[in-house]
Amino acid sequence: MPETAPPSAPAAYRPTARTVPTRARERAAYDHELVHAILDEAYICHLGFVRDGAPVVLPTLYGRVGERLYVHGSTGSRPLRMAGGTDSGRTEAPGLAVCLTVTHVDGLVLARSAFHHSINYRSVVVHGIARQVTDAEERRAALDAIVDHVVPGRSYDSRPANDRELAATAVIRLDLDEVSAKVRTGGPNDDPEDTGLPHWAGVVPLARGYGAPVPADDLDPAVALPDYLSVL
Amino acid sequence: MPETAPPSAPAAYRPTARTVPTRARERAAYDHELVHAILDEAYICHLGFVRDGAPVVLPTLYGRVGERLYVHGSTGSRPLRMAGGTDSGRTEAPGLAVCLTVTHVDGLVLARSAFHHSINYRSVVVHGIARQVTDAEERRAALDAIVDHVVPGRSYDSRPANDRELAATAVIRLDLDEVSAKVRTGGPNDDPEDTGLPHWAGVVPLARGYGAPVPADDLDPAVALPDYLSVL
Repeated sequence: MPETAPPSAPAAYRPTARTVPTRARERAAYDHELVHAILDEAYICHLGFVRDGAPVVLPTLYGRVGERLYVHGSTGSRPLRMAGGTDSGRTEAPGLAVCLTVTHVDGLVLARSAFHHSINYRSVVVHGIARQVTDAEERRAALDAIVDHVVPGRSYDSRPANDRELAATAVIRLDLDEVSAKVRTGGPNDDPEDTGLPHWAGVVPLARGYGAPVPADDLDPAVALPDYLSVL
Repeated sequence: MPETAPPSAPAAYRPTARTVPTRARERAAYDHELVHAILDEAYICHLGFVRDGAPVVLPTLYGRVGERLYVHGSTGSRPLRMAGGTDSGRTEAPGLAVCLTVTHVDGLVLARSAFHHSINYRSVVVHGIARQVTDAEERRAALDAIVDHVVPGRSYDSRPANDRELAATAVIRLDLDEVSAKVRTGGPNDDPEDTGLPHWAGVVPLARGYGAPVPADDLDPAVALPDYLSVL
């Protein structure tokens, strides 16, 4: 046993052949904290899968519980059907190979040269096999996570799914295992010989925020705007 | 020749098996004008392709010229290599099957029931074969379109790509042919028996805007902020 323990490294995903970019490797990152932050800040992901040999990319809601992502949908939707059911829960479903990607655009990067124009962004790419979730408790927790991903805490202030709704909803799980983040920050990377050109260069930040909440037409006026919305 | 011409239908993409959704068909649309508007408002797309049998989804810049989308990247990047080169321009490259998806999130839809929580969004999904662009003039127009997609008009106020940069840049083209838009708007769709529940329901709009432009560290102070940025 060593006398001095090594400093504990931050938890990180192990890079694989397909999570190490061929270019701009310095932008790639694998630590849990950054990956979780990017995932938690977004509303939707882009879910890719293969159908009849061709790629399909669909935007969809998702939720995170620890190291697992959840996507839900109708039991009739294509990717959720393709993720497979289980034989009365007794056998493991074959699953569906997916790539789940989340991207934030943070700024427009204007360089003097057209070539060096870019975007400041933060993205996460998750590769893996999505599988149907059949355990009732895990399904409920997943659905809560998806609702809470839209508005944190909202699952406590809404009617939980009833048996009919649960029966109509498929939930698939994707483990955070083969994961990478990619981040570009900062100003333009113009070539030194271009810095004297008479073109403005810099970053235009994108600002995100919320408009005033719009009550449903049939909302009882006695129902006040909850605190978790008034602080948005 | 008929005495009265039929009213001219708006130009629309022909629905195919994979652009007709299995669910929420009323949200699908195919008219050019809506599709172009959604494509032109975004900064990035999510490009899906298949590598070693598994899906890959990457965020990337793109540009539109009429009914063609363009994506660029390093000649060393995976999807651009996979889209194939041409044999000195004499043979047609095999191309790469892709799905290019663009999504705007417009609002958070809060229903009384967890089940009916949703997102107001506008998305476009394009299926097709991406091919390398080898024609010099089309490549230049494509690169201008990508820069102008970040900031309209910017290609006129930056140094055009030189031969070295052009040689290092691959451009792929995807025709707008098999295309669909999907749009959700409006308030929550609660079941009638839930409208009396004591939960706030409605839509929280997402607001987008720009922060103050941040000049590059080495920007000559004599270079003023251009008008096309001051109006953002």
